[in-house]
Amino acid sequence: MKIVVDMMGADLGVLPIIEGVSKALANKAFEPILVGDAKKAKAFISKDLASKVEVIDCPDFIRMEEQATEALKRKEASIFVGMDILKNGADALVSAGHSGATMGLATLKLGRIKGVSRPALCTLMPSVGKRASLCLDVGANTDCKAEYLLDFAILGYEYAKSVLGYGNPTVGVLANGEEDSKGDSLTKEAFKLIHDYPLFANNPSIFKGNVEGNDIFINSVDVVVCDGFVGNIVLKTTEGVASAIGSIFKTTIKEHFSAKIGAFLLKEAFGTLKQKTDYAEYGGAPLLGVNKAVIISHGKSNARAIECAIYQAIRAKESGVAEKMAQAFSHKNAGVQSPPVS
Amino acid sequence: MKIVVDMMGADLGVLPIIEGVSKALANKAFEPILVGDAKKAKAFISKDLASKVEVIDCPDFIRMEEQATEALKRKEASIFVGMDILKNGADALVSAGHSGATMGLATLKLGRIKGVSRPALCTLMPSVGKRASLCLDVGANTDCKAEYLLDFAILGYEYAKSVLGYGNPTVGVLANGEEDSKGDSLTKEAFKLIHDYPLFANNPSIFKGNVEGNDIFINSVDVVVCDGFVGNIVLKTTEGVASAIGSIFKTTIKEHFSAKIGAFLLKEAFGTLKQKTDYAEYGGAPLLGVNKAVIISHGKSNARAIECAIYQAIRAKESGVAEKMAQAFSHKNAGVQSPPVS
Repeated sequence: MKIVVDMMGADLGVLPIIEGVSKALANKAFEPILVGDAKKAKAFISKDLASKVEVIDCPDFIRMEEQATEALKRKEASIFVGMDILKNGADALVSAGHSGATMGLATLKLGRIKGVSRPALCTLMPSVGKRASLCLDVGANTDCKAEYLLDFAILGYEYAKSVLGYGNPTVGVLANGEEDSKGDSLTKEAFKLIHDYPLFANNPSIFKGNVEGNDIFINSVDVVVCDGFVGNIVLKTTEGVASAIGSIFKTTIKEHFSAKIGAFLLKEAFGTLKQKTDYAEYGGAPLLGVNKAVIISHGKSNARAIECAIYQAIRAKESGVAEKMAQAFSHKNAGVQSPPVS
Repeated sequence: MKIVVDMMGADLGVLPIIEGVSKALANKAFEPILVGDAKKAKAFISKDLASKVEVIDCPDFIRMEEQATEALKRKEASIFVGMDILKNGADALVSAGHSGATMGLATLKLGRIKGVSRPALCTLMPSVGKRASLCLDVGANTDCKAEYLLDFAILGYEYAKSVLGYGNPTVGVLANGEEDSKGDSLTKEAFKLIHDYPLFANNPSIFKGNVEGNDIFINSVDVVVCDGFVGNIVLKTTEGVASAIGSIFKTTIKEHFSAKIGAFLLKEAFGTLKQKTDYAEYGGAPLLGVNKAVIISHGKSNARAIECAIYQAIRAKESGVAEKMAQAFSHKNAGVQSPPVS
């Protein structure tokens, strides 16, 4: 299995990307194709690793402060080159660079699965429930139509079932109250479309209606559907609360306990918490709805995050998610249950 | 100072409301007017307290599952009676009952401050910064126009300055990125209106542009402006993350420490955390933009939350916030900088 890894544009530079690839190789068999600055990369690639990876030299990349549209014409940029390699035969791509650029190029070069109005960025949220809920869209589409949200519901359901292996996954729409009457004009319309869509109408145990912000963390439903503007705010709010609580907690422990006991407490007590809430453990966010597996990693990704993102890419490919999604949408394409997308 | 307290419709019943009033009376001089089921209340009102409160008997109330519009015609309901008393001479009102009913009746009976397109529900968020950020709207208005968000910015700024006593309060728009180009179509338009509004245009240090979800908890700005749909989701997400972390943490401590040490740890380490994140300490959410002080408390309010909500009501009245807001909007009414609201 060939996995393209973009080495460029991440906040922490090339090193954690290469370390992540190396760690993943220790556990899984795959052929990494590293795109980016070969000279910079060389310093971090051991002899052993060099024999297992292919390096494509393209030092140019899209900077975080650049517009995503810039990527569509920058033929020498790492993500442009990488996406071409994916299109022309590789199996999956992982990038921690400019996410807008990756999403734009993926949609342009790989194309949308037939019937998908807009690809969506999908992320697993920390949970105290048995499963983690997945939330989409978390940033690919700022202004959405109800039709997009229906597609996100289908994409999320298929991903939960096929890639995450959830039995009987459930779906909800993120709203300002759980009653059916709640929602803004967008989610109210989406609620109806999802409710009436054959997959959900014929299996009424899947669609649970509206859910609230707190439902995300107790796994009230497996798939939480929202527009990318709201999803991004939910994601950042979650990070913000977790970080604020961590910081308050550390200060309190320092105030109440000796340095040694404090350090022990933090290590022990924060261990599980960190694991449960650390984005690194969740890998990256798959871009669902395009014709191949694309995983978008956090800009701040450490080696562990890249490693997990690669496992995710492998699982996505192995589970044949793109094919299963295409099949799910072929039902939609055959029917007339929703209006055409303008 | 006469403060109307609605005793009905809260999740925990009449008792914590009466206890909250009693606690507040121990610290502040005011005349409580308790509206609700006098028979139920009697059991909890001591002789001493009875001499300090007026009780208006009206056992009917709007149930959580009823529509807010129901309140507008239910003349015998506690919140209807209470709002009339506020309108006819009392100084402030506190309710932990049906929030939609309270907001609807406040707008109908007290009226909006001239120039305010929509009143907004405003809440203080926990913060690791020196000040807590206030967030509005968090639920009064589901579908918003950009014009409403401009008004929320003015209302929030005035509240931060006049009631919270913040020196040089700053304002931001909640968006999916901090760059000026970010936002959905609504917030992009609101960004321009706020940027160009004389109060902010003439004092460029106030308006900081877009902020992200995590900025709320580090007090990047004092006033975070959003529509009520997004605000509600942010609020519930915050509650959900805090609760999930608390639950993960408790489990971990139980696993790693003896019951005795565990209990001690939880008490010590959670003390500050609880205080910083406990909604009870923040009292309730003022409904800004109506002609008198209305504080909407959490349905789950305990006695401490009601006590703090009463202090908030007293501060709001003492600081003359309604008059100051009217003055702030008189500048708006005199100008022509924003289009009329349909």
